[in-house]
Amino acid sequence: MSEAFVSEIMGTAMLILLGAGVVANVILPRNKGFDSGWLVINFGWGLAVFAGVYTAFKSGAHLNPAVTLGLYTADLPFAVIDDVAIEPTFGNMLLYFAAELIGAFLGAVLAFLAYKKHFDEDADPATKLAVFSTGPAIRSYGWNVVTEVLGTFVLVFVVIAFGSTPTGLGPLAVALLVVAIGASLGGPTGYAINPARDLGPRIAHALLPIRGKGSSDWAYSWVPIVGPLLGGAIAGWVGAWYVG
Amino acid sequence: MSEAFVSEIMGTAMLILLGAGVVANVILPRNKGFDSGWLVINFGWGLAVFAGVYTAFKSGAHLNPAVTLGLYTADLPFAVIDDVAIEPTFGNMLLYFAAELIGAFLGAVLAFLAYKKHFDEDADPATKLAVFSTGPAIRSYGWNVVTEVLGTFVLVFVVIAFGSTPTGLGPLAVALLVVAIGASLGGPTGYAINPARDLGPRIAHALLPIRGKGSSDWAYSWVPIVGPLLGGAIAGWVGAWYVG
Amino acid sequence: MSEAFVSEIMGTAMLILLGAGVVANVILPRNKGFDSGWLVINFGWGLAVFAGVYTAFKSGAHLNPAVTLGLYTADLPFAVIDDVAIEPTFGNMLLYFAAELIGAFLGAVLAFLAYKKHFDEDADPATKLAVFSTGPAIRSYGWNVVTEVLGTFVLVFVVIAFGSTPTGLGPLAVALLVVAIGASLGGPTGYAINPARDLGPRIAHALLPIRGKGSSDWAYSWVPIVGPLLGGAIAGWVGAWYVG
Amino acid sequence: MSEAFVSEIMGTAMLILLGAGVVANVILPRNKGFDSGWLVINFGWGLAVFAGVYTAFKSGAHLNPAVTLGLYTADLPFAVIDDVAIEPTFGNMLLYFAAELIGAFLGAVLAFLAYKKHFDEDADPATKLAVFSTGPAIRSYGWNVVTEVLGTFVLVFVVIAFGSTPTGLGPLAVALLVVAIGASLGGPTGYAINPARDLGPRIAHALLPIRGKGSSDWAYSWVPIVGPLLGGAIAGWVGAWYVG
Repeated sequence: MSEAFVSEIMGTAMLILLGAGVVANVILPRNKGFDSGWLVINFGWGLAVFAGVYTAFKSGAHLNPAVTLGLYTADLPFAVIDDVAIEPTFGNMLLYFAAELIGAFLGAVLAFLAYKKHFDEDADPATKLAVFSTGPAIRSYGWNVVTEVLGTFVLVFVVIAFGSTPTGLGPLAVALLVVAIGASLGGPTGYAINPARDLGPRIAHALLPIRGKGSSDWAYSWVPIVGPLLGGAIAGWVGAWYVG
Repeated sequence: MSEAFVSEIMGTAMLILLGAGVVANVILPRNKGFDSGWLVINFGWGLAVFAGVYTAFKSGAHLNPAVTLGLYTADLPFAVIDDVAIEPTFGNMLLYFAAELIGAFLGAVLAFLAYKKHFDEDADPATKLAVFSTGPAIRSYGWNVVTEVLGTFVLVFVVIAFGSTPTGLGPLAVALLVVAIGASLGGPTGYAINPARDLGPRIAHALLPIRGKGSSDWAYSWVPIVGPLLGGAIAGWVGAWYVG
Repeated sequence: MSEAFVSEIMGTAMLILLGAGVVANVILPRNKGFDSGWLVINFGWGLAVFAGVYTAFKSGAHLNPAVTLGLYTADLPFAVIDDVAIEPTFGNMLLYFAAELIGAFLGAVLAFLAYKKHFDEDADPATKLAVFSTGPAIRSYGWNVVTEVLGTFVLVFVVIAFGSTPTGLGPLAVALLVVAIGASLGGPTGYAINPARDLGPRIAHALLPIRGKGSSDWAYSWVPIVGPLLGGAIAGWVGAWYVG
Repeated sequence: MSEAFVSEIMGTAMLILLGAGVVANVILPRNKGFDSGWLVINFGWGLAVFAGVYTAFKSGAHLNPAVTLGLYTADLPFAVIDDVAIEPTFGNMLLYFAAELIGAFLGAVLAFLAYKKHFDEDADPATKLAVFSTGPAIRSYGWNVVTEVLGTFVLVFVVIAFGSTPTGLGPLAVALLVVAIGASLGGPTGYAINPARDLGPRIAHALLPIRGKGSSDWAYSWVPIVGPLLGGAIAGWVGAWYVG
């Protein structure tokens, strides 16, 4: 389990280094990818998942508490490594949660270092926060939760369904699924669909010495935790029944 | 067959949730993906197929009456699950049609919920309809049918040809095929190439309490039914002869 | 061989229907994909190859006289179907050339039909020609040939190298290769890299009743024939030596 | 080893022909892909890797001294061809370095030929250099090195991790990884992540008779050498420990 713990930290750090990185590239001033658009962010996050999944090969590469909770709810093993399963116990779930949060925090710190000189440029405090955490296009906590529930349901349900259609795509399948969710359901909330992806970098934003930073918007921070966990749990229940 | 019925509903709902979703993201005001362009819609619909096909693994994942009709015309099994075939009978075809329409309707309702606050914003009624259903760039029913016939022919013919070139792509192959059709033949009509994809959401548009909605454009609604069914049937005939 | 002849016609028709189609969508007025950019054209042509290769599974899916000539030069079989090889004889090469040209012509006619109403709109005659055939960004026959030689060399050489690295990508590999060539070497000439792709549609342009059409630019037409054939032949020689 | 030497030259030449090519297409005047954006460059470089890896199938397709150094540090074989390993000795490492640099130089010369007429057009000298070599968005040698270290670490670490998750993607996996790194970490320095990719074309820029060229910016040239080598070495150490 200690190997899986480290693996989950490293994979989630990889995910957030690349995920926060692509947002920084597109929205922070003077970057070569500045203003290159939603599609870059969209594919960038998908490919961040791609790299993260390869990295976390010792832990099943959840990289996401909503995935962990979904598998727990579905009573599916967290990973099967060399024919040994990591069982979906409550204690293991908490360990995965912790690793994912630690990894997400570390990844955000690394992304900050990669883009240090661009954070030093003038930009709206909200823009600087947006590199780290999601925020709603139209603030409406109830509907924002609905959108996050739907997005995360799609993620966890289809991930559970992957097992029924073997292909040679490997980590590309989940990467493309994340691109799909971002393109199709990311408009209203920026698709956290992952509590660690949002909370870890938000903590990093609060702690790091970012020039001209503003609020970390803690008022919204519960939405990308509650919505994804709810969506993941529902997907676990429905998925266990459906894939059976 | 009841498992396949549910599977086809769920897969088509997934398809339309994500397909209508990506259009909403790009064309409804204040979305993070607002105005991000045709390519986002194009890939978004392709990846909607990707997720839908994984979801509908118990029914062969037609998600489309034109595909069902094409297989019926070609006398190919609708699905082979655990070595048991779902035979292409007329009765089964009608069940598939029903499931696809129900699923498309449900997916449109879910997409409406995901984007509720953005539907509440001011936008052209035609824009709000465009999230749900296709419409012609230049209204000319005859030529619009021709375009839909060609697009659906490509879809169903190449899907039948897939069997002759085994790869490890799985559902990605049909997803990319749909991207291809959208990019190449989607200009004049917005590529319904699927009667359920158009009719189910159009019914949802008519029934849902969408703020400031206008006509559901029933005058055009037969084109994306007749064109795709014709194209699918021709592809079934030609495909059965060609692939043999 | 008659099966391969039909297969090569159908695959090349599929290639050009989708390839000319994506150009029409992006450059002809009032299309939904109008002005959606180079990347759409670039991926659209790649995916046109994708669909064309699946279609032409009975003939090795050359879809391109430069590929046929490259295999002839390398003395590699044109196709191996059910363990029976189509030998790279001079006569077979001519049959492939004929099938590819016929298919390209037919595909262009179908693309014209799909976009009939948009061809009826006002547009620059050069724009209407560009749906069918390539033209140089800077007219300079010598350098234009150089660019076409390089692009086609990459195509045929890497296609020959594919055999040494088995994957599960199938037709996606060559599709991505064509995207690569377009993105990287398509700037100066619009990357014909295929004599049939250029000549067949140019003949269609000359014959079809296109509203407001201008010259078919026959003065340039030899460049996308000679360049690709030269590049393909060189790639065949070098490839046969290198891959061994 | 002489076969591997030639292979590494040819693969790196392919990489740079297509990589420099896509930049030329997007930033040199009058190209068909002119001003088509960061995403084209981003995917273009990824697909350049794709073609380069297929080409260099006899040498393990490093195409990059940072990869060679990473494998040397991790004590992993440079390639295994027909069950014969190319051992990671210091001498072999130097041979790989030489081949990669020669190949990168040749590829840049070919890209220059493909775009000759467009280099003859008026453009900013810095733009003409940017076809060949990378440069910083904000010049700050220390932070520029940090960014290059991080990007190259991701490249080499995930490449080492690939072995633990077999898929059917083949060269597409590393191509997508390079797209990911460019999208996510390419903003500040243009992601050399490869000393040969930067130095070889920079030498070509210095030697070629480019109309209106300016400085080759040798002051910056050590950054894309030192940063990638450092990142590759660290990734080799960490990767050898992690993957075990």
